[in-house]
Order: sequence, then C-alpha cells, then structure tokens
Amino acid sequence: MAVRHINPAGLHRSPAFSQAVVVEQPAKTIYIGGQNGVDAAGKIVGPTVGEQATQALRNLATILESEGASLANIVHWTIAVADGHAINDGFAAFQQAWNPADPPPAITVHVVAGLGPGFLVEIGAVAVV
Amino acid sequence: MAVRHINPAGLHRSPAFSQAVVVEQPAKTIYIGGQNGVDAAGKIVGPTVGEQATQALRNLATILESEGASLANIVHWTIAVADGHAINDGFAAFQQAWNPADPPPAITVHVVAGLGPGFLVEIGAVAVV
Amino acid sequence: MAVRHINPAGLHRSPAFSQAVVVEQPAKTIYIGGQNGVDAAGKIVGPTVGEQATQALRNLATILESEGASLANIVHWTIAVADGHAINDGFAAFQQAWNPADPPPAITVHVVAGLGPGFLVEIGAVAVV
Repeated sequence: MAVRHINPAGLHRSPAFSQAVVVEQPAKTIYIGGQNGVDAAGKIVGPTVGEQATQALRNLATILESEGASLANIVHWTIAVADGHAINDGFAAFQQAWNPADPPPAITVHVVAGLGPGFLVEIGAVAVV
Repeated sequence: MAVRHINPAGLHRSPAFSQAVVVEQPAKTIYIGGQNGVDAAGKIVGPTVGEQATQALRNLATILESEGASLANIVHWTIAVADGHAINDGFAAFQQAWNPADPPPAITVHVVAGLGPGFLVEIGAVAVV
Repeated sequence: MAVRHINPAGLHRSPAFSQAVVVEQPAKTIYIGGQNGVDAAGKIVGPTVGEQATQALRNLATILESEGASLANIVHWTIAVADGHAINDGFAAFQQAWNPADPPPAITVHVVAGLGPGFLVEIGAVAVV
C-alpha cells in the first residue's frame, strides 16, 4: 500500500489541501460518515462553527484511533457548512487539529442550505491505512 | 474481502447509521451516481420527498441487484434533500427499504439549495462486494 | 483491474452519466479534491459557470495527466453549482471536455447555497487507473 499526495505543476498550491491523493492497492479504506459537533451523548457541543468543527474533528480522530489510524490517514474529506456561517472558523479548527507536517487531504467544501437540526458543520472523510 | 461497520466508544450511537465502515482489500467497489425519484422512463414519480426517496432507493436496489448485491452492501451514502422539505420523510423511506438486521452504512446528509428540476432528494452511494 | 460502467435494465438511461461504475481490485484510486475555476496562480478565471467549469475540468485533466491518466478514468464525480446559476452551462462545459466515445462517470449534482468566495462551480472526482 502506498499513498501519495499530489500537487501537479500548473495548479495553484495551498497549504490547506492537496489537489489529489493517489492510493495504490491493496489498502484498507475507511469510509467515515459525516461527523457533527456532537458529543458521546449525542448532544450538540455549542452554537458556533468553531466549537462544532473542533468536536467533529475530535470524533473523526476517535474513529480513526479505534482503527490504529489518525487524521493523517484521511485522503479526502467533504466539509459542509450551513449557509450564513463563516467557513473560516472551520479552517481555524482544522489548523488546530491538523499536524502541519502531514500532507493535507484532498478537500470538497460546500455551503449548504442546512444540515440536521442544530448542526452548523459536517465533516465526512475517506481514510486509507 | 471484509467489511466492518464500526461505532467506536466515545461516539454517539444511532440505529440510522454506522460511524464508519472499514473495507479490507481486495474488494469490488461500486460507485453509484446520485439516484433520484425517477422511473425507468426518466419520469419523476411524485411530488413528495417520501415518494421520491422510495423510488431512489428502489433504483439503488436495482443497480445493486444487477451486480448480485443488495442495499446491505452499501458502505456509505450521500443524501441530499432540497431546502424546505423534511428530511424525516426520507428517513421513513429508508426505514421501509432497509432490513434492520443489517448494519447501516456511514451517512452524509445535506440540505441543498436545489437539485435537478423537480427533484427533492438525491441518494448516491458507495457499495462494496 | 477492471472498470465497468453499468446501466441496468429498469433504470432511465442518459448520455450524460452512467448509473454506476464497478471497480475490481487491485486498482489505483485517485481522490481528486473539488476543483474550481482557478488558474495556476489561484485566480478565478471568470464570472460565469461556463468559464469556471471549463477551467475546473482543465484542472482535473492536469491532475489526471500527471498520473498518466485522463478524464476517461473518472468513475464518479461530484458537481456543485452555486444557487442562482444554471447547471446547464456546466453540462455544456462537460460536453466540450468529454470524449463522447468514453462511457461517462457516475455523477452527483447539488445546487448549493454557496462555495468558496467567487466560486460558482466545484467538481470533485474519484478516478481509477
């Protein structure tokens, strides 16, 4: 198994994402459902994107750790932020959670009309171990 | 090939989804495009989320059956509901279509500003056989 | 490795997409982050969906070519168009970029409340080589 993060010549470079991630088989793929800012009891942790993104990233880490993996194993993530809320707060939470020494995943970001009741941000991911 | 649905300690549990699904290679992966509430002629089956979700799930089943698989092989699905329509009707359709004995897939749910003309719900999926 | 595009009996057929794509392992999977209408300097190429979709597809092609692949290797793509802008302009760009001799990918299309600042369209993809 090998995972390569690529940023081909001719494309803009960003510290926040890789343009694509190449996965050679055989590998173990972990499909992680959209995580929200809820705690172990299913309660929303707070009313801000920053709080909710921090918790969603914590949930992602918990899932990955249960498989002996970490956030660094994410190859692609899908971020949705509810309309009217700043994406930037989510990026700030990411920068807190992410080790800048690891190449970042490919990313998809949508501002959506809504999420489940009370949710302001949802982060789903595919990870490869 | 092995597929494991995981719900690690420290995360909220729901009967409606698994937190993540782990896929060991080699496996056959089926990428299913977003299914809408359209019949074999491409006609929209009705004006409600419930009717459309029921048909979209039927389309997913048809696709999977053509590969000798079933809804139980879905590891992740991506559900979009058009703004102003209740997500709950989609969940009701899911509960009708889903065998509760099977571990549910990981899930991503977005309320979107819109879909194709007349579409109220779209369900895409990744399945593993 | 084998990739099969399927359109099972009982489902509507469209020249614009396949209902699903089946991937046998082992294969190399390329997870491509959402591409926008930005050039190599990160600048938005123009204010229309058509211009931005054309550039996003060019970026996808650049990424795939850097791996010895092409748009024909895409098995699934996720298209988001900002609310208030016609999806059709994106399809026109697709028809320009896509070789009609190649079976089209599975597709998911959402109209979203927004994307990053100035972006009208985002195209993410999973490709298999």
